Amino acid sequence: MTTTGATAYWCELAWVPPGEVASGVLVHVDDTHITAVERAATPPPRATRLPGLTLPGLANVHSHAFHRALRGRTHGVPTATGAGRGSFWTWRERMYDVARRLDPDTYHQLARAVYGEMVLAGITCVGEFHYLHHGPDGTPYDEPNVMAEVLVAAAREAGLRITVLDTCYLTGGIGAPLSGAQMRFGDGDAEKWATRADQLRGAHAKDHDVVVGAAVHSVRAVPPHELATVVSWGHASHAPLHVHLSEQRRENADCEAAYGVSPTALLFEHGVLGPRTTAVHATHLDEGGVGLLAGTETTVCLCPTTERDLADGIGPASSLSRAGSPLVLGSDSHAVIDLFEEARALELDERLHTEERGHWSAPELLTAMSESGHRALGFADAGLIAPGGWADLVSVRLDSVRTAGADLGRAVDMAVFAGTAADVVSVVASGCPVASNGHHLRLGDVGALLTSSIQTL
Amino acid sequence: MTTTGATAYWCELAWVPPGEVASGVLVHVDDTHITAVERAATPPPRATRLPGLTLPGLANVHSHAFHRALRGRTHGVPTATGAGRGSFWTWRERMYDVARRLDPDTYHQLARAVYGEMVLAGITCVGEFHYLHHGPDGTPYDEPNVMAEVLVAAAREAGLRITVLDTCYLTGGIGAPLSGAQMRFGDGDAEKWATRADQLRGAHAKDHDVVVGAAVHSVRAVPPHELATVVSWGHASHAPLHVHLSEQRRENADCEAAYGVSPTALLFEHGVLGPRTTAVHATHLDEGGVGLLAGTETTVCLCPTTERDLADGIGPASSLSRAGSPLVLGSDSHAVIDLFEEARALELDERLHTEERGHWSAPELLTAMSESGHRALGFADAGLIAPGGWADLVSVRLDSVRTAGADLGRAVDMAVFAGTAADVVSVVASGCPVASNGHHLRLGDVGALLTSSIQTL
Repeated sequence: MTTTGATAYWCELAWVPPGEVASGVLVHVDDTHITAVERAATPPPRATRLPGLTLPGLANVHSHAFHRALRGRTHGVPTATGAGRGSFWTWRERMYDVARRLDPDTYHQLARAVYGEMVLAGITCVGEFHYLHHGPDGTPYDEPNVMAEVLVAAAREAGLRITVLDTCYLTGGIGAPLSGAQMRFGDGDAEKWATRADQLRGAHAKDHDVVVGAAVHSVRAVPPHELATVVSWGHASHAPLHVHLSEQRRENADCEAAYGVSPTALLFEHGVLGPRTTAVHATHLDEGGVGLLAGTETTVCLCPTTERDLADGIGPASSLSRAGSPLVLGSDSHAVIDLFEEARALELDERLHTEERGHWSAPELLTAMSESGHRALGFADAGLIAPGGWADLVSVRLDSVRTAGADLGRAVDMAVFAGTAADVVSVVASGCPVASNGHHLRLGDVGALLTSSIQTL
Repeated sequence: MTTTGATAYWCELAWVPPGEVASGVLVHVDDTHITAVERAATPPPRATRLPGLTLPGLANVHSHAFHRALRGRTHGVPTATGAGRGSFWTWRERMYDVARRLDPDTYHQLARAVYGEMVLAGITCVGEFHYLHHGPDGTPYDEPNVMAEVLVAAAREAGLRITVLDTCYLTGGIGAPLSGAQMRFGDGDAEKWATRADQLRGAHAKDHDVVVGAAVHSVRAVPPHELATVVSWGHASHAPLHVHLSEQRRENADCEAAYGVSPTALLFEHGVLGPRTTAVHATHLDEGGVGLLAGTETTVCLCPTTERDLADGIGPASSLSRAGSPLVLGSDSHAVIDLFEEARALELDERLHTEERGHWSAPELLTAMSESGHRALGFADAGLIAPGGWADLVSVRLDSVRTAGADLGRAVDMAVFAGTAADVVSVVASGCPVASNGHHLRLGDVGALLTSSIQTL
């Protein structure tokens, strides 16, 4: 990565451990990491001044970059009979249409633009749940991991770190072979998946800015007897292991019918759950499922704007959190890329569900967006403005029409409950300035990149 | 109002009746109104070019301007015991703290800044549900309507039209006298309210940009025997009549206990419902309540971001809509001022509730934001880009990171489901350009006005 050497940033206000808003915070950075954090009432000479409230870098734990091409294009035009309204499953057909068309070049262009959008929103690390492994008919590319490598290249060009969650995807449904667009997702069996994933991991063994983790797409896509192979691969590399879980009731019904247990119980029985595991969505859980996730210290990644968009429902996030599962956040289908919106949606959807306020404080939501999120992506040393941490500094305006009027001692409340991606005024990622005043310092006009990469498809 | 004389705007894309996106639309304006709409492939000389997708002006049907001072300041810090999480009712105490402090000057300053924020979000007409009538102890000001007049002045300075919903607020709860901050809300009885409201109406009888309507605060605040007076006042002036309805379950319980019927039934029995009436929230309705509202053609104003914030719950919007109640939108407590967010929240909250997509199409949501909203505020000739309508033109960028990648023929889908207030690039209201590129052309730095007016309190 391009680095900047020793430098310093002076924050007008910053959110610093153990969770307080301090004014006049000087952050010393050597290349990619924070070396010291001290108080300074005024900016010293040569320090770069960061306005507003500076937060640690935000981690977008669950991304399917290519879904961005669907934004604004999948909303039904309902008719009197209810036809045309669409469902998760008709949405998936539209998503497959895009998946079918991508090649390494168009995937690279699109991912770079989408990661550029993320950077402008203050995201400094992305977890890409990646399963577009092979050519459209399932034939491996000459370079078997070329589709993952374009994601890594896209992330570096956009200036954020990436955790590639190399996804095992073997069946088109429980007991059903892959078909159509799914052909390119499959490696045949988990052993072959592991062999390919080994190559990807080996290629990035020395990279500090890239983590290669594993993913089980879901109990729909990986048969029980194949799960142990994926789990062992993750254990051997101390890598994060992610899995889609119970986003839709149909997954639960299919799993119960085939195996007599819930998806959560099936994953538990096969050793998938645990402190390095992140379950994504976890919307339709029974009490036993909450207990299994929390009891194994499994992290849960909520993707509230996607769960709203796809009519998934409101999951038991408060129960999971109280029982001990760390919560993290992802923009998933990229109907919206705005972790502030995801964070408050977590709280607000729980308010709608319970008719009570105050399930999480703004600092707790911010922790989900930053420290906990990075940990779920295998970056334990990120997400805090503290010595030894990755030098990610995300500054949020407190003078926009949205954020003006904050109680400065509780400015985090304003940022989390009223801030938006559009209020991110400066982003330093891995020690490098990457965005300023809504402008991406490397990519230039990200809107134009999004338009052209989506039009190409 | 300041007017610009005859002029023309050329829209790159515009949403025109009967609900289609057209490219190259030339809108001729004489002073405040649209005189003609025609197609023109390229911008003629002297026409002002409007980029992106141009929509009709948006109507914010339910506003309490002073609540903006609470943004980011009422979120609890929950403790292990659940204390500190807060509720609608503890939030109301914080709101009363602000209500207590306002005087005509600070109210004017704050409202001007808040209306400035609305204009930047594409709102060209606001319905202000106004009950801060008198001095803090209830003593009328020398000019009895000075607090309403500062709202009118604020709206004119900010460049939007206003419907002052002069609110009758007589009791502090069913059978309870006004107390504390509520003292300033009360006129004593409905006759005295009507006398004062008459003066306000008279003062603006010749103003085209101001409507004076009536409001019943709620069944909590107006006893049944006083309702007929407010209704008659509204009928006599053909004015809109608005009423808060069943936002919280406690209102229903109190009403049932006191009168043996639901708030909806009570309002129906006393003639409050009807085609010129707008019920705000309507969250906790039974099937009978839905039938009464729809059967009387009562409009329902949803305020989804407030209903999320205050943990009100998800109301039966889809049932109301199907049964025939027009739906409109308001930002109410101003936790957020973004009608795009309100519109998609209506659809997305219904998706969460039903686990089905596609309850309203994007054009239907846009109609709620514009044409239906204006009608609920007594501006029947606004909310459409058509000859004879008010010349309100709100242009939304389609090249921001949020909105890039639209299918141009369905650009309304992108605007409604992914656009934000920050994507509003130009606003023409009542024939005058009032905002451009996020800059308010009359007020200048609206963020600074918000900060100073809130700090003053």
